[in-house]
Amino acid sequence: MRQEAQPTGGTGSEAVLGGAPAPSARVGMVGAGQLARMTHQAALDYGVALQVLARGEDEPAVAAGAPWVRGEPGCYEDLVALAKGSEVVTFDHEVIPPAHLRRLADAGHVLRPAPETFVVSQDKWVAREVLGPAGFPFPAHGPAWCAEDVTRFGDRHGWPLVLKATRGGYDGRGVRVLEGPAALGAQAAALFPTEDRQRDEGSEGPPWLVEEHLELAAECAVVLARRPSGQMACYPPIGTRQVEGICRELTVPADLPRTVLEEAKGMAKAVAGTIGAAGVMALECFWTRDGRLLVNELALRPHNTGHITMEAAVTSQFHQHLRAVLDWPLGSPALRSPAATVNLIAADDRATVPDRLPLALEDPRVHLHLYGKAPRRGRKIGHLTVLGDDVGEALDRARRAAAVLLGAEVHDPAGAGRRA
Amino acid sequence: MRQEAQPTGGTGSEAVLGGAPAPSARVGMVGAGQLARMTHQAALDYGVALQVLARGEDEPAVAAGAPWVRGEPGCYEDLVALAKGSEVVTFDHEVIPPAHLRRLADAGHVLRPAPETFVVSQDKWVAREVLGPAGFPFPAHGPAWCAEDVTRFGDRHGWPLVLKATRGGYDGRGVRVLEGPAALGAQAAALFPTEDRQRDEGSEGPPWLVEEHLELAAECAVVLARRPSGQMACYPPIGTRQVEGICRELTVPADLPRTVLEEAKGMAKAVAGTIGAAGVMALECFWTRDGRLLVNELALRPHNTGHITMEAAVTSQFHQHLRAVLDWPLGSPALRSPAATVNLIAADDRATVPDRLPLALEDPRVHLHLYGKAPRRGRKIGHLTVLGDDVGEALDRARRAAAVLLGAEVHDPAGAGRRA
Repeated sequence: MRQEAQPTGGTGSEAVLGGAPAPSARVGMVGAGQLARMTHQAALDYGVALQVLARGEDEPAVAAGAPWVRGEPGCYEDLVALAKGSEVVTFDHEVIPPAHLRRLADAGHVLRPAPETFVVSQDKWVAREVLGPAGFPFPAHGPAWCAEDVTRFGDRHGWPLVLKATRGGYDGRGVRVLEGPAALGAQAAALFPTEDRQRDEGSEGPPWLVEEHLELAAECAVVLARRPSGQMACYPPIGTRQVEGICRELTVPADLPRTVLEEAKGMAKAVAGTIGAAGVMALECFWTRDGRLLVNELALRPHNTGHITMEAAVTSQFHQHLRAVLDWPLGSPALRSPAATVNLIAADDRATVPDRLPLALEDPRVHLHLYGKAPRRGRKIGHLTVLGDDVGEALDRARRAAAVLLGAEVHDPAGAGRRA
Repeated sequence: MRQEAQPTGGTGSEAVLGGAPAPSARVGMVGAGQLARMTHQAALDYGVALQVLARGEDEPAVAAGAPWVRGEPGCYEDLVALAKGSEVVTFDHEVIPPAHLRRLADAGHVLRPAPETFVVSQDKWVAREVLGPAGFPFPAHGPAWCAEDVTRFGDRHGWPLVLKATRGGYDGRGVRVLEGPAALGAQAAALFPTEDRQRDEGSEGPPWLVEEHLELAAECAVVLARRPSGQMACYPPIGTRQVEGICRELTVPADLPRTVLEEAKGMAKAVAGTIGAAGVMALECFWTRDGRLLVNELALRPHNTGHITMEAAVTSQFHQHLRAVLDWPLGSPALRSPAATVNLIAADDRATVPDRLPLALEDPRVHLHLYGKAPRRGRKIGHLTVLGDDVGEALDRARRAAAVLLGAEVHDPAGAGRRA
């Protein structure tokens, strides 16, 4: 080898001599939360111009510098403003009127997933109506238009039982466990107001689902991506752990029998094909003590459980989502390392994260992702991931770092809470 | 495990209920090129508010959404505008008057690295004056104030020889190999104009260095980070390959004898300690056919060779740079996988990257990073990295993807160019 002439190394980044490049593609995303924020980070790598629909500059994706259209996801004109100049429109959340999306598609805009697919993730009743007859297993369930429907279901399947709002996004209208008829009686008026608010949303389904209460052995999520042309890439199933109703921890590989994991993967791929998914899809599954693998939830966008792919897989779910909605070849979903992710749920309203952050980084293997959200008790302000030779070690380290960052008790399944 | 109440999963990113969080820290970066762009991506993960000094909105970091101060790195008032509101000021390039930096520091702003450290990377003559007496090995060299200095050096050390501009950033004023006195004669008037432009820059050193011409066995770069408090984290040395004077390919682990790699790491750490580095530092080394390990170049910022750490190491150099300049605990520099990186040097001026991009992504293990720069022949518009079980396989795949993306000949050391 001969020493060659070379430019002076001491210039760092080269100056740009005028003119921005043509973007690789233009993608619009409805919503500007943390999923849009991390999608923006990924879009930069591909030269994709991502614009988001946001209510204001404090939203996480806007604060991260994503170009944005000011507007409300409930306003059709705002959706049109986003769709104009976007080759593809995709989603950061589900709280968008399905009728608006159908109208957008009818007007010629490309939505990925398509409205008739996306609604499966927007409405739990539709999900069961579509996927149930196709043979996908759900917990025993029925529609709940009124308190009597719940009582009848309880008489048949026993108590406790679970009520799930069919359409999400109202504060406090999520999932409730009812221990018995007395609990139902106390809440009936609030659950089933005389005025039928559901009508206003243009849905023909019931406001609530009632489901059997399950004794769970474990939960897992299968995250995959599907292109419109049909190619799929499925990540290894991710173990999930809920605490007080919020997904708190992820682990991969998931600690479930291999046969169950294979079954979950197969089920997720079949669901994606059945509904014509486009983009990232997450299928949350229950594995019950009596050995049933059941569908819990479905999301058709990047998903909290997929955050672990950012470091643990070859391709992050955010890069993958862009590739999938643009119908580009998908990245490898292969696992690079066992890993654990802990969601950072703010323990208080004081903005002391900056002070604690360097302490949390004392573990040199912690990967931190903050979402640009002010801490408020119970709010998910970020997540952190640790890779390890085994999941247990990674989870221990991730829990410790999260506790330090939040100034909270270390989560310890054995119950021995310990101040970090 | 008991099935628990949980919020409706179908909401995606949560809405932000007003108010942005306090940033984890405020960092100012002089320059807004691709290094600043990728630092911005990393800063988002840590909730660090990074603002950059840029000439306009087309610069890569500004196009990526980094908050910015409009200005010139050569203007003291613009540097002050950046430094105000920044806890720490750091750098994307070296083309900043050292006197301005000294004045900024004197005015109480925190610069990392400090001006007296940074100048070692700004001026190759200063580097040799500082590091030579401390025992660090450079190629034989001397100052070149005029053509006679070069001739005398050639008489003593033989021809060809190498001329290096001591301070960078002028187009065409980089590194030149002079085959003999005739070549010098032809260029002397351009190299040494009567009017001494160097005086204007406030430097007391010579405009050029003259160095022995080396027969190289290999080149490598050692990238490390150092905190002001002294902690260091050193990545495994990275093999580099130059083509036509531009760093074209990186591989890790570097294909050099273990003893040489250990020596290079030790040298880099000693250099960092000697000059009091703060932030990322890259030491580019020559390994000669006659078995000498020599210092080539020094950078005190994230560096092109460090791009391979984004996927190949536990902690990317951009996260690491932020941690280091903020004096936070450093991340692990451990290697996660053998890897190869190919810089994307535009082959032409046509903006056809968007069309070729999906083709380049047909290899599911390609990690692409575009810099938001319009393609122009010879311009570095991005890089891509492939991880593999071994470096050779990763390099083959990376070369192929780069060639597809650029519509260029596949680079093949064996010389058998092949249209992708």
